[in-house]
Amino acid sequence: MNLVHNFIKKNGDNMQFGFKIGTKVLFGKGCLIQNKELVAKCGKRALIVTGKNSAKASGALSHVEEILKEYNIDYSIYDRVENNPSLENVAEGGKAAREFKADFIIGIGGGSPLDASKAIAVLAVNDIEPLELYKNVFENRPLSIVAIPTTAGTGSEVTPYSILTRNDIKTKMSFGNEDTFPKLAFIDATYTESMPYETTVDTAVDALSHAMEGYLSKRITPVSDILALEAMRIFSECTKDLIDNNIDFNIREKLIYVSMLGGMVISHTGTTIIHGLGYSLTYFKGIPHGRANGYFMREYLKFNYEAVGEKINKILELFKVSSIDEFGDIIEKMIKKDLSLSSEEIKNYAALTMKQRSTSYNARQVNEKDLVEILEKTFL
Amino acid sequence: MNLVHNFIKKNGDNMQFGFKIGTKVLFGKGCLIQNKELVAKCGKRALIVTGKNSAKASGALSHVEEILKEYNIDYSIYDRVENNPSLENVAEGGKAAREFKADFIIGIGGGSPLDASKAIAVLAVNDIEPLELYKNVFENRPLSIVAIPTTAGTGSEVTPYSILTRNDIKTKMSFGNEDTFPKLAFIDATYTESMPYETTVDTAVDALSHAMEGYLSKRITPVSDILALEAMRIFSECTKDLIDNNIDFNIREKLIYVSMLGGMVISHTGTTIIHGLGYSLTYFKGIPHGRANGYFMREYLKFNYEAVGEKINKILELFKVSSIDEFGDIIEKMIKKDLSLSSEEIKNYAALTMKQRSTSYNARQVNEKDLVEILEKTFL
Repeated sequence: MNLVHNFIKKNGDNMQFGFKIGTKVLFGKGCLIQNKELVAKCGKRALIVTGKNSAKASGALSHVEEILKEYNIDYSIYDRVENNPSLENVAEGGKAAREFKADFIIGIGGGSPLDASKAIAVLAVNDIEPLELYKNVFENRPLSIVAIPTTAGTGSEVTPYSILTRNDIKTKMSFGNEDTFPKLAFIDATYTESMPYETTVDTAVDALSHAMEGYLSKRITPVSDILALEAMRIFSECTKDLIDNNIDFNIREKLIYVSMLGGMVISHTGTTIIHGLGYSLTYFKGIPHGRANGYFMREYLKFNYEAVGEKINKILELFKVSSIDEFGDIIEKMIKKDLSLSSEEIKNYAALTMKQRSTSYNARQVNEKDLVEILEKTFL
Repeated sequence: MNLVHNFIKKNGDNMQFGFKIGTKVLFGKGCLIQNKELVAKCGKRALIVTGKNSAKASGALSHVEEILKEYNIDYSIYDRVENNPSLENVAEGGKAAREFKADFIIGIGGGSPLDASKAIAVLAVNDIEPLELYKNVFENRPLSIVAIPTTAGTGSEVTPYSILTRNDIKTKMSFGNEDTFPKLAFIDATYTESMPYETTVDTAVDALSHAMEGYLSKRITPVSDILALEAMRIFSECTKDLIDNNIDFNIREKLIYVSMLGGMVISHTGTTIIHGLGYSLTYFKGIPHGRANGYFMREYLKFNYEAVGEKINKILELFKVSSIDEFGDIIEKMIKKDLSLSSEEIKNYAALTMKQRSTSYNARQVNEKDLVEILEKTFL
């Protein structure tokens, strides 16, 4: 992941940063149909990459099929993307793309199908073992990707990252380079309307986490900070309705906008220890990704306060609360925490999180003992 | 220019917008040398496009030559870009690119060389009359462009626009599509240090104008608004030092950051009547572009107040002034206005401005009589 922005350095007081969003975004109700000719320009043979349900339930799949038929674009559907797709899973998708001779990929769904699309776009044209995805350098340029989110959290439609489950080391890990940014993202809150309440909340908290971790990362840039603040500001307008399950189109549109901003933020900053810790909860306990992130927010903010207290105060101000605990209470009203961990599990998760590169981006320098403490305070 | 974001529509209260910045930005002192391998990846034969002076004076040209030599990249220098380059001028540059068989373009300078680079990148691989640039559709994809600004105003390094002088209709007019975004922009305030004071101020006012016109355009997007506000906020921190000619590296860095943000803004919104009116002052009176824009700011804000008063108040708040006139006074402390126009000139300029597409993007609907009034109030 570092490959995308490894030129970001701090150099005394001078600004030093990079900016790159390789995706063209079309945002708004009806944006896909209104801009269908852009899809048609992507190629002649599309592999649609999706999971079993959301593409259909959201209505996005039928819109895509309608467009592909209108423009006589051949397509095949690979709908076997798992939740938290594994290397084995995307290898199968890559095979499907090669066999179909796809010349572009259309990813429809939440983070799992969108992230899988990126891996499949690489594997379709590079005869490599899936583990080699993590080299981040590919002989052949990945196929173009069209991304259509059906959740509002991942931001994957505007990031180069593909987060895959590695069963070999029992965690999730991301790859991505500038060529794995989707070429096009169609962001229409309509496609998120079929999301159940719990998924809506879990994914929304993921979006918040991207903005927050990006804002408190060592790799901040001036532009990512502006976008992160705006994302958190708009999220804060939605918290009451999220808690009350009072989620109309207007809220959904705000949430998918927050999600997009969060994606733009982490495209520059990456994530930090919240994501690293969360991966273990997802891998070992099956906790949905966003919810797992949310569990750690309270202790994450407390831990980082000595390093970036002023910025954390700014977040509290946006949420109109006067303490980290008050903020933590809001998050826990959204995501009920009914999980406890053994000391052994905690030790294991802390050790795994230390291996994530993103851990080094955390505002305050962190060691394994710190992570054990955060886990203990959260789950003991 | 519409081609880039012609999908922006207002649809009731729902958000409807596009986002695309096709440029990878490297920002900061030393960014070019630190990331020289990115230049090396652009091709094997570079045409350097620049004017007579600033590329050399800024030090950017010698850095570029050093890099090209290190990587054994053949290059040729086309340094005949005029101020406000004409179609004839870029046609000559295009010929130079074809004859040299350039496979990428490196533009170094202010808006003139950077804008010329985009036209030359198109003409190098498309055998068309320069007037056909305005079709915005080209058979062959333009050469890749590396942009290195030596002024802090144009923002051209992150826009697709190329603004060229049309002697046939006696004004400046822009073309550009998604393929004319520079591929890379190296934004280092060091290269602006050799700018004389007047150019520093004139170009800074241009950057402000991009942010302001973008913020008050009919084509605003949520993201462009955030960037525009940030640009104006940071500009406001520089006004005193600009007026006092107290311009250190820190101020220069802020200004080139404002310029970049302004470019990102107008990549989405385009400009409005300030630019349209300013083109006539530049074409007929030789007034530098940014200064020409600055002349109109006071009356522009007054004219638009009834349409976007709340947003204008926000601008005044950022500048810590309580009236448009107070704001106008600040601008006029930077750019001395010693120009008067005849009634006939005013009539002519108003008519020419009505022909600019950007005039239709102005927040308040505008007709020729309105423009005459703005010109009269400014110059009679």
